[in-house]
Amino acid sequence: MERQGFFITLEGGEGSGKTTIIGRLAAYLQNRSIPYLITREPGGIEIAEKIRSIILDPAHTAMDSRTEALLYAAARSQHLAEVVEPALEEGLTVLCDRFVDSSLVYQGYARGLGMEAVWEINRFAIGNRMPDLTFYLDIEPEVGLSRIAANQDREVNRLDLESLAFHEKVREGYKLVVNNNPDRIVVLDAGRPLHMVEQDIVRTLEERVLKGF
Amino acid sequence: MERQGFFITLEGGEGSGKTTIIGRLAAYLQNRSIPYLITREPGGIEIAEKIRSIILDPAHTAMDSRTEALLYAAARSQHLAEVVEPALEEGLTVLCDRFVDSSLVYQGYARGLGMEAVWEINRFAIGNRMPDLTFYLDIEPEVGLSRIAANQDREVNRLDLESLAFHEKVREGYKLVVNNNPDRIVVLDAGRPLHMVEQDIVRTLEERVLKGF
Repeated sequence: MERQGFFITLEGGEGSGKTTIIGRLAAYLQNRSIPYLITREPGGIEIAEKIRSIILDPAHTAMDSRTEALLYAAARSQHLAEVVEPALEEGLTVLCDRFVDSSLVYQGYARGLGMEAVWEINRFAIGNRMPDLTFYLDIEPEVGLSRIAANQDREVNRLDLESLAFHEKVREGYKLVVNNNPDRIVVLDAGRPLHMVEQDIVRTLEERVLKGF
Repeated sequence: MERQGFFITLEGGEGSGKTTIIGRLAAYLQNRSIPYLITREPGGIEIAEKIRSIILDPAHTAMDSRTEALLYAAARSQHLAEVVEPALEEGLTVLCDRFVDSSLVYQGYARGLGMEAVWEINRFAIGNRMPDLTFYLDIEPEVGLSRIAANQDREVNRLDLESLAFHEKVREGYKLVVNNNPDRIVVLDAGRPLHMVEQDIVRTLEERVLKGF
């Protein structure tokens, strides 16, 4: 039987550059001939897409914050079962844009549901599958939000419309999650030029992932 | 401030007669001039209806059982926030067709996710809101399923199509839940003629609910 793939997640506030960085990460793995899969919830999975569309529909202003957290967890479990687990079984390195940490931070901390409570429902959603490595792209909320505003191609969703205070709480929440998971999460200063962020990522991959290949 | 309403839930396997019994319960409360609300998840709430339609879509054969449990919990929290809590606040007696016990039994026990794990996500979904009283309509699965088969008006959903063995597990699960909640749950033999079941319900209401009115 082949060895299971490596499971890498990307985390960060709005406009932290996750999508760009994932592209660079992918290019790097490609150069090293390491088979990979890029994904993010809901990931084109019909059931998970339908769940996500309920969450992000701007008309759903009456959505209870507990409902929202449970829906994120539901989309997560389906995406995991249909996309992530099969890919890891095949030995692919999986790059996932956001995972449990986002829920702990956005629902648990920023919306005040409690990280412990949100962890309970996410533990249920993911079973025993935690990322092997997580890159957290840290950026000042003002900078991140101004990047989004400048990017006309990017679709603005319900989360982008939250207040600056909300995004500052998000950043605080990420700091707590990072402190609780120092071995798994690597913090990157995403306010720097892209090539510097990329250098840090490559160094981490060399140290943590590629030595196993 | 008015006193909060009484929260009554109805539980039972497929074809146990919950809908009929709720109608009788309602007629009784009406006669006693006790204001009430009959509901069941998703209860016409747009968000909860959309969630439920994902769960029950017969095309979703790939649905992970954890996803399903999380979606039930999500629909529950939304229905609770938009329907049940406001009604109880207004002092209405709420009659709800299925609630947390159904999840413990169907997902936790019959599908094997574990009652403890399913309780964790439901505890999150309901906050501190548990039923004041629950009627469990106990019936042999063969009898319940044959009632459904004979009822041409009733729409057959994905759960009805499960095997007899599944419905027998459901009944076993209910027995466990009843044993763990002897004060809250009243067991009714639903294989008897309707008027006998109704008599038991009225007696319980007189003892537990109406003495407070």
